[in-house]
Amino acid sequence: MTGRMRAIEIRGFGGPEVLVPGERPVPAPGAGEILVRVAAAGVNRPDVAQRQGVYPPPPGASDIPGLEIAGEVVACGRGVTRWQPGEQVAALVTGGGYAEFCLAHEEHALPVPASLSATEAAAIPETLFTVWHNVVERGRLRAGEWLLVHGGASGIGTMAIQLGRARGARVIVTAGSPARCAACLALGAERAVDHRSEDFVAAVREATGGHGADVILDMVGGSYLARNLDAAAVEGRIAQIAMLGGAKAEIPLFMLMVKRLTLTGSTLRPRSVADKAAMARAIAVEVWPLVAQGRIRPVIDRVLPLAEAAEAHRHMESGSHVGKIVLSCG
Amino acid sequence: MTGRMRAIEIRGFGGPEVLVPGERPVPAPGAGEILVRVAAAGVNRPDVAQRQGVYPPPPGASDIPGLEIAGEVVACGRGVTRWQPGEQVAALVTGGGYAEFCLAHEEHALPVPASLSATEAAAIPETLFTVWHNVVERGRLRAGEWLLVHGGASGIGTMAIQLGRARGARVIVTAGSPARCAACLALGAERAVDHRSEDFVAAVREATGGHGADVILDMVGGSYLARNLDAAAVEGRIAQIAMLGGAKAEIPLFMLMVKRLTLTGSTLRPRSVADKAAMARAIAVEVWPLVAQGRIRPVIDRVLPLAEAAEAHRHMESGSHVGKIVLSCG
Repeated sequence: MTGRMRAIEIRGFGGPEVLVPGERPVPAPGAGEILVRVAAAGVNRPDVAQRQGVYPPPPGASDIPGLEIAGEVVACGRGVTRWQPGEQVAALVTGGGYAEFCLAHEEHALPVPASLSATEAAAIPETLFTVWHNVVERGRLRAGEWLLVHGGASGIGTMAIQLGRARGARVIVTAGSPARCAACLALGAERAVDHRSEDFVAAVREATGGHGADVILDMVGGSYLARNLDAAAVEGRIAQIAMLGGAKAEIPLFMLMVKRLTLTGSTLRPRSVADKAAMARAIAVEVWPLVAQGRIRPVIDRVLPLAEAAEAHRHMESGSHVGKIVLSCG
Repeated sequence: MTGRMRAIEIRGFGGPEVLVPGERPVPAPGAGEILVRVAAAGVNRPDVAQRQGVYPPPPGASDIPGLEIAGEVVACGRGVTRWQPGEQVAALVTGGGYAEFCLAHEEHALPVPASLSATEAAAIPETLFTVWHNVVERGRLRAGEWLLVHGGASGIGTMAIQLGRARGARVIVTAGSPARCAACLALGAERAVDHRSEDFVAAVREATGGHGADVILDMVGGSYLARNLDAAAVEGRIAQIAMLGGAKAEIPLFMLMVKRLTLTGSTLRPRSVADKAAMARAIAVEVWPLVAQGRIRPVIDRVLPLAEAAEAHRHMESGSHVGKIVLSCG
């Protein structure tokens, strides 16, 4: 494993065309790390932001994009106890996923269940860690509550619908076309709001009989924030995971107080090794059995060869995908 | 107790002068209610808002102002088990405190410890319930954490300093004059920031060695909101209990996400009987022993006769008080 590998490099920040196949040395696993021969790597919004130069990798992370992978363990660093070469893992990584080989912390990897392909397994970690942490750990979603998921047809959205349903919640989504709305309903959402023709605040009010959404998962921000407060139930929790619609927002404090709302949010990539390990342990207990049973299954929009990473980004930015876009190293 | 009583009426909304002594029938306690002969009643900011016509009493509440009282139980409604006539109580009430007699729900009353005067006891409920719920229940303040209290010299502020210290937190306050800052330091704050001459964000950063405030109790809102986010520690919690500086605020969502902050808030008066009873039970266990021991003691700015309620409001609105303003019915 001391040779060279194919990897996607970011050659200057900009459009998808800056993603160019190149060659890099195969990285060597440090203490607590495993080296994975990547079978497939998921594509995520933060990869696009990194490519654009607005979301730099945290200190110590690879400059190669890619935050989630699946593949075979081929080498273990000092002190690794959880994995052995030959095992198949799905892992959350701090970068470097768009490559033939990638390092992962041993505690950020989960075993690939027999029920999943490598492509499917690679499509899970980033969305599942994000949804788990924000909807369950921060948002404290309980069975019987109403979960509103914006961008319901996205990778995050399709995972949130399934996790919400699996936890006993009733799910409402917003999405940007009738086809995307239909996909969300097929996954278990009770109500899908086409945000291009419908007001989600009124739709949530109607669907919940006036109760409102107990938990809202939002990646839009901007003008959605005040509307989220409006759509929220008393004691509702809003988790902000991105701000595709604007980084600054006006918030009506009176409504926050009167409805006793909680607005929180997070980013995943810069979290500590220990924080991510804690999430992985919780997911292993609470969610992974559902994944193994097929009750939670990633929705794959399309699979492209690693060398076509630029095309994968173009497709993501077109906004027409339903579920995950995955790069295959096969 | 079927006679008439003196009470302060709000004769048209406006300045302090609309508070006029009048006469009302003594109210009769309903199921679960006690009738209290009011010895003293605390004055609070929401009373001012009610007088101005911008904070109407919730349905079923008295139109007489006053949210906290202390005095002697003189009659018990059907089903009351916790109190008997002759006992001294301090109670949170939904209104009607500025009067010789006032109804309270039996579960919203606490016994007056021997160590406190009626005036002191009347000065506790509204601030303690508010601070307890927002700093401990919503803000989840833990021992060793940094608590930032805006308006440190107010009734709320002086209670928050003491409760924060009693829970093992380190307290920073903002206040509006050197004298008010000194009063906060005397109560146990480690650092008092005169907001008229100092930037609290920089002061918090310096005082905490760059860590930031873990919990922030804010009644200002407006432009303070973004600065609170700036002053907060990673995973910090901000509890909004009023918005004297503006009801709308711009919030930098990126900072909320990157620091994984939680913004929440509440109002006390419209909470359900059950919600307030739950707070009272927690306070009885967690805080009342400290009150009985004198470790938490209300700071009294001044005591005025009930008939001078207008003057009490004028004084509160002048902003020069330190601690609580109380009306005495003696």
